[in-house]
Amino acid sequence: MTGGRRPGEDWVCEEQAPGVWFCLGVKKWLVRRRTPYQALDLAETESHGRVLTLDGKFMLSERDEFFYHEMLVHPALLCHPSPERVLVVGGGDGGALREVLRHPVKNAVLVEIDEAVVEVSKEWLPSVHQGSFQDPRVEIIIAPGEKFLPAHPGEFDVIIVDSTDPIGPGAALFESPFFRACHEALRKDGILSLQAGSPLLWPSELQGVVQALRTIFPVVVPYLGFVPLYPTGMWSYVLASAVSLPSQEELERRFSARRLSTRYFTPAIFQAAQVIPPFVEALLSP
Amino acid sequence: MTGGRRPGEDWVCEEQAPGVWFCLGVKKWLVRRRTPYQALDLAETESHGRVLTLDGKFMLSERDEFFYHEMLVHPALLCHPSPERVLVVGGGDGGALREVLRHPVKNAVLVEIDEAVVEVSKEWLPSVHQGSFQDPRVEIIIAPGEKFLPAHPGEFDVIIVDSTDPIGPGAALFESPFFRACHEALRKDGILSLQAGSPLLWPSELQGVVQALRTIFPVVVPYLGFVPLYPTGMWSYVLASAVSLPSQEELERRFSARRLSTRYFTPAIFQAAQVIPPFVEALLSP
Repeated sequence: MTGGRRPGEDWVCEEQAPGVWFCLGVKKWLVRRRTPYQALDLAETESHGRVLTLDGKFMLSERDEFFYHEMLVHPALLCHPSPERVLVVGGGDGGALREVLRHPVKNAVLVEIDEAVVEVSKEWLPSVHQGSFQDPRVEIIIAPGEKFLPAHPGEFDVIIVDSTDPIGPGAALFESPFFRACHEALRKDGILSLQAGSPLLWPSELQGVVQALRTIFPVVVPYLGFVPLYPTGMWSYVLASAVSLPSQEELERRFSARRLSTRYFTPAIFQAAQVIPPFVEALLSP
Repeated sequence: MTGGRRPGEDWVCEEQAPGVWFCLGVKKWLVRRRTPYQALDLAETESHGRVLTLDGKFMLSERDEFFYHEMLVHPALLCHPSPERVLVVGGGDGGALREVLRHPVKNAVLVEIDEAVVEVSKEWLPSVHQGSFQDPRVEIIIAPGEKFLPAHPGEFDVIIVDSTDPIGPGAALFESPFFRACHEALRKDGILSLQAGSPLLWPSELQGVVQALRTIFPVVVPYLGFVPLYPTGMWSYVLASAVSLPSQEELERRFSARRLSTRYFTPAIFQAAQVIPPFVEALLSP
């Protein structure tokens, strides 16, 4: 590495895989703390604006969080004809909540295990949450998602799981009991969406999630999108539904009717994102 | 950065943008030399197999070069009904040539400016070229592409520009005179394809290429694909044609007829790759 600085000094770095490092130059550290659940660091970077890491994994940057949040939220919300009551599990930064609130929701509940993520985001990431924590439709609950769900059967139109990877505090959010709890907490025509990591780095994560969801939901749709900040830049999501999904024309109509303004997601991008390359398809064949 | 090693010691690193570094742990350096044109380094890495860099930029890794080479080559070759004579400009590693030879070509010419890239790849990257340099249909010419083309008017069915970025020896391959020379070197129904970098990092590169091509070719099709090794993982390509492109059904038919076996590219992936997100579309509006 050239230049006077080296990673570990004024750099925020992620070990994406053994022997694979991605590092951003830090202008200023804003937060460096250990919460009861994880290490939480927030840096002002030279290249990506403010950047949040949890346990050394990049969660978001101001520059390109839109890729992830738009693709996690809008497919599920648009596939529902009237998403009135929405649950976000995780997502303490408020970015997913911000996108949820662009739809005609009456009530959005955010259940985050780590209060510190919400506190830090409220203070330091206004460009991400854009005031969504203060929206009168929003309720914030500090609890583990897998504890919250069983007490709320049949309550939600859409559940968005905005989790970390299946290690650390987010591990329970990738297992069958959690998916069954989501199914129980959804209304009869409810829709679930979640992120399932990089198919190149963690093929068994995507494979396991899709297999588990197929035993619970009749409609399971994996899709892919760019997330430049995340390892390999190729990210997978899965949408699961108890009822069949609307036509592409209907998604286009709702996208216009709800006046969604987006930078990455469109209904056409969502359709294209469902075209899965052969090396990923090989993981998903039933 | 944790662990005993640091980038610059047993790491191969690329500065993707100011303050943005991507580093792979090196098991062994295989080649470290300065050619008349550029610095050429080849490493055996822990994570990605062998990795080639030119002037400190990652050109390919054995692990995931298929993303790039399949998407650069197959769209153009499949869009041509009978690509008999094909030119690859650059691509001294032989990966693009390998994919070209999977089509029913009679003659493929590779014009590479830097003989050392061909020599090193022949010796160290057999999994990439897969013997394509020795194929009897292949002719290797060491010359700058922009010098070669004017002597070969109307000769090629397809031209693939497999260039580095528009700095260093590859700079001339991103300018209008070069695109006009490609147009002149193509037969009347010829097709050109090239890579145009990361739309997120270098929007003006993609924008400039598309604008320049539109003044020369009636059909210009930008498309996007994942390339995990390249900065942001989101890569743009442009296909340009003097005649209108075949239907999706025809591409599917040719894909089957030519018995192409691929890991990332399919005709459906190519169709999906042409769906451009709003933030990129904004660059491309005429």
